Amino acid sequence: MAEDDQLILLEWYPSVFAARVRIALAEKGLKYESRPEDLINKSPLLLKMNPVHKQIPVLIHKGRPICGSMVTVQYIDEVWNHKSPLLPSDPLQRAHAKFWADYVDKKIFGIGSSKKELIECFKILEEELGDKPYFGGESFGYVDLSLIPCYSSFYTYETLGKLIMAEECPKIVDWAHRCLQKESVSKSLCDQRKFYETILEISRGGSTWSSVQKFLNKLDQLHNS
Amino acid sequence: MAEDDQLILLEWYPSVFAARVRIALAEKGLKYESRPEDLINKSPLLLKMNPVHKQIPVLIHKGRPICGSMVTVQYIDEVWNHKSPLLPSDPLQRAHAKFWADYVDKKIFGIGSSKKELIECFKILEEELGDKPYFGGESFGYVDLSLIPCYSSFYTYETLGKLIMAEECPKIVDWAHRCLQKESVSKSLCDQRKFYETILEISRGGSTWSSVQKFLNKLDQLHNS
Repeated sequence: MAEDDQLILLEWYPSVFAARVRIALAEKGLKYESRPEDLINKSPLLLKMNPVHKQIPVLIHKGRPICGSMVTVQYIDEVWNHKSPLLPSDPLQRAHAKFWADYVDKKIFGIGSSKKELIECFKILEEELGDKPYFGGESFGYVDLSLIPCYSSFYTYETLGKLIMAEECPKIVDWAHRCLQKESVSKSLCDQRKFYETILEISRGGSTWSSVQKFLNKLDQLHNS
Repeated sequence: MAEDDQLILLEWYPSVFAARVRIALAEKGLKYESRPEDLINKSPLLLKMNPVHKQIPVLIHKGRPICGSMVTVQYIDEVWNHKSPLLPSDPLQRAHAKFWADYVDKKIFGIGSSKKELIECFKILEEELGDKPYFGGESFGYVDLSLIPCYSSFYTYETLGKLIMAEECPKIVDWAHRCLQKESVSKSLCDQRKFYETILEISRGGSTWSSVQKFLNKLDQLHNS
């Protein structure tokens, strides 16, 4: 890769939003330099590249920043369109995929869902998945990529929420295992135990469901601060 | 237009989100059938076409629904790409436009901003606008379209918030007046007084800033219910 085509990813490993960009880069077979951020003490480069939100992930391509996880995924899909298309080419199917990725953003990674609400949203996603192997149909696509980072939080949900994901939403768990067979996914996701430890660390030991959401909220505030 | 190419818009006139779709359709010179919804008593068609969120706007094209205002705007821009491009063709500029439209969604049309926060966000948008006539540069584009429906709420902000928008953010007001010279915009926006009356009607007469946000919140709940 020519130097001016260099890719740098400002990220934080446990972030589900950074995971999305890692998966997209891996799907396209792109090499990049990962620069982990300390979110309590953000780098001057992050503050310069995303002055509005000061959030990770930021992908820097040819020296210019792209911010926002799904905006970045779309950018990657448009620029490197030679392999592994993520969004379908048909406009109606594209709109459908974007609708569901929005749903994932608001309902699964949004702040403040109760345990009941979260499970209900997963069940709606199971209906949308239907009998297809992936949300994208026969192959892993945009909606799969938007959702699969939630797998990192399953152990946290189960431990703090006292529930068994495979019983609550078996089709989502099967789908997740299918996605994890792809190296682009398995190598990009934060380990479930590591994610849980991070949550505990940030929350300084809280351990109820209501505090899970507060922790995730805190995680989000770290990104926003 | 052939019957199977028929466009139907399920909408509600005061909705800023419906206004976005109206502007996009007008920019492309498309004829469509407007079907106003009673948001308290939603039509079976709306419940069928957007069963997940039960929200307007929904654009029905060839009998199939497209939901979510900016997803719909992108769909319109992709299918009718013969005139008035809304998103730039360059991937980096496209990502930049999507980033700012996301900002508008979260910060201007998001719920719960204080008066101070809202004005701060408008000032950040003024910086992004700079000396350009439009956010899209020399011509009206995607970010302009995402933001301009906020103009309908300026009289409400001024009356209930006791502020003068032209003093707080003069460049945004100048920009809005520039956009309003376009018939696609002026004919698509809800009148400011009408918007204010709707807010008062829904709030049953509350009249402080903190209640403005509650009203807008309520407005959103109507969409979400």
